[in-house]
Amino acid sequence: MTHQHSVESAIGILDSGVGGLTVVREVFQQLPKEKVLYFGDTLRCPYGPRPSDEVRRFTLEIVRYLSGHPLKALVIACNTATALALDEVRRQVNVPVLGVVEPGARAAIKVSQQGRVGVIGTEGTIRSSAYERALKRIDPRLYVVSLACPALVPLVESGREENENSRKILRESLAPLKKHRLDSLILGCTHYPLIASMISREMGSGVTLISSAEETTRELIGILSSHGLLRQGPARHPEEHHFFTSGRPEAFRSIAERWLHRRVRVEHAVLSALDESQVG
Amino acid sequence: MTHQHSVESAIGILDSGVGGLTVVREVFQQLPKEKVLYFGDTLRCPYGPRPSDEVRRFTLEIVRYLSGHPLKALVIACNTATALALDEVRRQVNVPVLGVVEPGARAAIKVSQQGRVGVIGTEGTIRSSAYERALKRIDPRLYVVSLACPALVPLVESGREENENSRKILRESLAPLKKHRLDSLILGCTHYPLIASMISREMGSGVTLISSAEETTRELIGILSSHGLLRQGPARHPEEHHFFTSGRPEAFRSIAERWLHRRVRVEHAVLSALDESQVG
Repeated sequence: MTHQHSVESAIGILDSGVGGLTVVREVFQQLPKEKVLYFGDTLRCPYGPRPSDEVRRFTLEIVRYLSGHPLKALVIACNTATALALDEVRRQVNVPVLGVVEPGARAAIKVSQQGRVGVIGTEGTIRSSAYERALKRIDPRLYVVSLACPALVPLVESGREENENSRKILRESLAPLKKHRLDSLILGCTHYPLIASMISREMGSGVTLISSAEETTRELIGILSSHGLLRQGPARHPEEHHFFTSGRPEAFRSIAERWLHRRVRVEHAVLSALDESQVG
Repeated sequence: MTHQHSVESAIGILDSGVGGLTVVREVFQQLPKEKVLYFGDTLRCPYGPRPSDEVRRFTLEIVRYLSGHPLKALVIACNTATALALDEVRRQVNVPVLGVVEPGARAAIKVSQQGRVGVIGTEGTIRSSAYERALKRIDPRLYVVSLACPALVPLVESGREENENSRKILRESLAPLKKHRLDSLILGCTHYPLIASMISREMGSGVTLISSAEETTRELIGILSSHGLLRQGPARHPEEHHFFTSGRPEAFRSIAERWLHRRVRVEHAVLSALDESQVG
């Protein structure tokens, strides 16, 4: 794959669906001068329950698609794809590739005072133990508690307003963490930052929340900077960003505009290798 | 300049003297599997009072010297050289180049709650306004107070034991900061992390100290990782690291072993362009 490493090139961000939009939101905020190319594979979402080699294949298809555009960095904004395909993607492209797991793990270790770290995520992410391995690789003495919270993604996508029902779902989802006296909690699913304030109220002020989306963007700044690839000049015009979805553009646009608080341009993308048998 | 981007390549670290050893200390701690090549230009130290174009020329000479070895990243662990030569070095080499200013500034903005940030450094660093510019570039609303503390480098190099005299020097040096109600303080000189606990006691628990050396190393991990260049396997043997000095190897070794708590191999380096007229 060929790439132009130019300061004008875009930041590619890929996800199995809409969750990675929280990374886009962070990039818009922290890096307003950069252009974003986003690919959400909503047609084949979620990746969590799929076999590993299928997730790897899907991810590489998207990387190939995005690589048709000039990129200066690539973010795999999907925890499952990061856990299963990051190394392979790094071998295939010659721009820096960031996953969301390592930046989240590194940030947790930095803020944790007592070394008692919680991780919440989808069932696929928690089953992969990607965060636990990343954390223990840096500090084997950490106390790590991982918990799958399958009810939270629907909560976010349904509108995330705080009411008695959503508080109840959240309380029941997070209850198993209470006894572990955590000092930090990694939001190990790109959907969760959208309900961070609700999670924070439920966990209490003694638990510092870590948004992998936010930390990944922070690391992205350092990486672009170290290559002299941070763009100067005015902020990007909204029309310069491109959003691709393998699913229905209208549904994607509706969620994207609600989450990003701005109008977005969404295009339907057809991946060459995509056939009906892959759509579950 | 040619470089081999191999996982076995070294991390080049350069400084005007011994201050950058605090970055080496962080790399040894956070990245024990990586090999370090350090260059301390002790013969021409300090860089602070020198004209800008001289600092740039000296820095590029060292970069050229280190580039004779396979490198996978380069750290300019000198605040003056970062402020004056970082962009030029990035244009000349094709590996990621980190300065110490930007990581420190980014970390300060992250931890600051009230946006009241202090910066202490040598006269050269404070005069360059490099930290203030880096901070304001990210968030123009920040309240930034910069203070030159020329008495602190001698305090560190003389042995940094805490006694009535050293406490007095510190108290007088930091006194002008007291009235500004800071919430964070950037240690904008690579010497300062060695007296961080004394500084912290003087500033009080309400002020979070930021070590640029520590933050730079943290960003380095993210950068190497994004390129798939973090080395796996056992920790490096002490003999694999190389320390070069333009000055007297014995004097350099004595300080390096005291700061790093291990034996180091120091070689005298002759920079081709070095002549007596440059030695001040």
